[in-house]
Amino acid sequence: MKYGILTEEQILYLKTLTDPERVLTGTEISEDYSHDELGGIHSYPDVLIRVMAETEISQIMKFAWQENIPVVVRGAGTGLVGACVAVRGGIMIDISGMNRILELDEETMTVTVEPGVLLMELAQYVEERGFFYPPDPGEKSATIGGNISTNAGGMRAVRYGVTRDFVRGLTVVLPDGTVEELGGKIAKNSSGYDLKDLIIGSEGTLAVITKAVLRLLPLPAKTVSLLIPYDSISSAIHMAPKILRLKVNPTAVEFMEKEVILFAEDYLGKKFPDTKSPAYLLLTFDGNSKEYIDSVCEQTAGYCLENGARDVFLVDTDERKESVWSARGAFLEAIKASTSEMDECDVVVPISKIADLILYVHELAEKYELRIPSFGHAGDGNLHIYICRDTMEEEKWKEKLAAVFECLYKKAEEFGGAVSGEHGIGFAKIPYFEAQAGETVIRLMRGIKSVFDPKDILNPGKIFHNDRDCGEKNKFSD
Amino acid sequence: MKYGILTEEQILYLKTLTDPERVLTGTEISEDYSHDELGGIHSYPDVLIRVMAETEISQIMKFAWQENIPVVVRGAGTGLVGACVAVRGGIMIDISGMNRILELDEETMTVTVEPGVLLMELAQYVEERGFFYPPDPGEKSATIGGNISTNAGGMRAVRYGVTRDFVRGLTVVLPDGTVEELGGKIAKNSSGYDLKDLIIGSEGTLAVITKAVLRLLPLPAKTVSLLIPYDSISSAIHMAPKILRLKVNPTAVEFMEKEVILFAEDYLGKKFPDTKSPAYLLLTFDGNSKEYIDSVCEQTAGYCLENGARDVFLVDTDERKESVWSARGAFLEAIKASTSEMDECDVVVPISKIADLILYVHELAEKYELRIPSFGHAGDGNLHIYICRDTMEEEKWKEKLAAVFECLYKKAEEFGGAVSGEHGIGFAKIPYFEAQAGETVIRLMRGIKSVFDPKDILNPGKIFHNDRDCGEKNKFSD
Repeated sequence: MKYGILTEEQILYLKTLTDPERVLTGTEISEDYSHDELGGIHSYPDVLIRVMAETEISQIMKFAWQENIPVVVRGAGTGLVGACVAVRGGIMIDISGMNRILELDEETMTVTVEPGVLLMELAQYVEERGFFYPPDPGEKSATIGGNISTNAGGMRAVRYGVTRDFVRGLTVVLPDGTVEELGGKIAKNSSGYDLKDLIIGSEGTLAVITKAVLRLLPLPAKTVSLLIPYDSISSAIHMAPKILRLKVNPTAVEFMEKEVILFAEDYLGKKFPDTKSPAYLLLTFDGNSKEYIDSVCEQTAGYCLENGARDVFLVDTDERKESVWSARGAFLEAIKASTSEMDECDVVVPISKIADLILYVHELAEKYELRIPSFGHAGDGNLHIYICRDTMEEEKWKEKLAAVFECLYKKAEEFGGAVSGEHGIGFAKIPYFEAQAGETVIRLMRGIKSVFDPKDILNPGKIFHNDRDCGEKNKFSD
Repeated sequence: MKYGILTEEQILYLKTLTDPERVLTGTEISEDYSHDELGGIHSYPDVLIRVMAETEISQIMKFAWQENIPVVVRGAGTGLVGACVAVRGGIMIDISGMNRILELDEETMTVTVEPGVLLMELAQYVEERGFFYPPDPGEKSATIGGNISTNAGGMRAVRYGVTRDFVRGLTVVLPDGTVEELGGKIAKNSSGYDLKDLIIGSEGTLAVITKAVLRLLPLPAKTVSLLIPYDSISSAIHMAPKILRLKVNPTAVEFMEKEVILFAEDYLGKKFPDTKSPAYLLLTFDGNSKEYIDSVCEQTAGYCLENGARDVFLVDTDERKESVWSARGAFLEAIKASTSEMDECDVVVPISKIADLILYVHELAEKYELRIPSFGHAGDGNLHIYICRDTMEEEKWKEKLAAVFECLYKKAEEFGGAVSGEHGIGFAKIPYFEAQAGETVIRLMRGIKSVFDPKDILNPGKIFHNDRDCGEKNKFSD
């Protein structure tokens, strides 16, 4: 069955559902809306609607359901795998205007937000009021709706967990326009199947998130980082599992290579505290007393110095924190700025296997004569690997990129890993995901998709291929 | 469509799949297998198979799938809502013999277990090796498979979360006998829909769990509890949200009423440290240094004494810990022993609403002239409420029980709560769950059930009614 194609009359109808000025078509739609942050997948929606309320979303979905029109939801567009690109055309719902923080409930320690609130806005809001939202993905200008849709992880996952662990409740619009609440302000729930966790990480394919109740913690009184230089990336990463067993409970355990730090220095025009060593671990500790933090930092520093660290830099002043963490936050942008084109791999492996995977990445870079910088979360096994085109001619680049991806995903699978730790599958990673997940898992996921969205109108052609894709030549539109 | 009825020949075939001595029928099946711990739902399976390996389960499921025979999986049978009772007859798979701890992986801090391992066995095993499995449901002789199937919560959920938060990977047998691995030793995953969390809490209706990879933490060096008496249950519970905001990070925040403590004293024949007050909070703190624990205990004790506590008892000796926690662990058994018959309610509400709900329970007890003792988790909003029959005549009891349940679940819903915090829906809570969840949610859950189990052979008639139930007079068998 083919999707419907929007008529002039239908566009006029859509304008009556919202505000005519918030319904854009043709050249009114900025080029930004044709791709995401990485920009590898390009396709325009037929109409872009900047929604301001759940009722508008519900009415748009009712219309799309009836008329069989594909719908894709977009937040800040900071994704890297094409999940928010309208590969089938149709309607794009831009939720970035739904960005109100609705309620801070101090008794239940929850904050209720609309999906368009940015991560950095949320963090600031709750921290000013003595609370803490632990999920901390590198991209602070992503929306909370986007974070939930990819189950984003981030730096502090080591101690606190990922976005999933902080979502208490969701309000969603189902593909037929029905509004449903899942979970709420409750801390435990064993009442039927876990629909809330099914929506989390489903990349906008099952329902449109219109509201989220997020769990907060009391804001830790003190945060200190340690920057620890090593002779090699391998010796740095091998320390991560050992540090996790020290009973010092680090918040973050990041690894970084000198090359990537230098890119960030260039990109930001700011100096990093130290760039003399080939590899670094960056640890963070949270706590409520100076004594506690001093004691865990001392214990960790001593242990690291006895076990191969070249030095330990205390990152406790605002200036140093800013220099280290702004660099860490800019790694992706800095690598992007260092090359003509790049693609990414967001595999996750058991933490015991990260060092081996990094060494394998180095081998691949040498074998394929490609630059492949990487950085990531040594504490949770999630690596961000960037394959850079630099000056390579197109055909050779595509060939090599495909070969490197194939090797990387195969190796990650061998190590008991998964295709994506936090970026999602979107459009770009479907072949690798389908190959790794296998027929049974894909059959179950397709089945679940059909239960929520029997007409396959919500973000079609993402996470896995569907039947409608099969007979088509053009993968981007009907 | 009717389920198949097992023939003599089929029983003989089942005996070839395992070991004839592990396949029991008729009077060979102990009465224990006809009910769970609470004992309100009674029904025998036609055949009981004590499985010892995943391959046996896979072969049994292939057979059941082909012959359309209902299958229910049973662990230790410690459930309270009839989830492990063979209400449709057919095959009962007893997994309690699959109780090996397969691997402790110190690098990834995971332990891999078979589903029949008991919670207390797992706790002891990992603690002896310096690790910690935080989920701590009251019933220590439950199996891990059962804990996963109900997403059991327990005392330490306040700080660490529930069973779901500690399951990294599952191996399952699907209804058609296919074996599938979900997740693994990885700490993050954004690769497609979250099938693992769908299985967790699905009460054995979607797949048979044959192996679990569980996340561990380093064992805290020190654990201390504070027992804090109050003038009333309301003033005790009102303190819970305040304590959670103190930045002292308690592991557990339990509430208990004098009446229940006295039952436990009687039941165990052991003295509780103090029974002079009508209500108590029991707090626990974990930490790695004496200084840290002393400091949080002192801060909390001071705060409580300034805010209405009658006293603060430090529970730091082995003897006191044993006396307090063995009483807490025996509450359910003690209440059961105090009456002729009882039924339970496991609602969860936002923590800001617990005090109101408890007061409402007291009102109901008065209005209906029923004894309704309760205890539970002030720190996470999960209450265990027991309605006692005592000497009431049957008809009146049933009438009052139904009325009380109706009121309780309605009030919990009003408060933004859910039917079950950790016991599940099973068979007993279906009407309340269906009423609260509403048509759309039930339709989605039924749809998911059909995707995993299109023949509805795996634990049929649990969590929600199904079509096959509708035309039948006898709710327990065809």
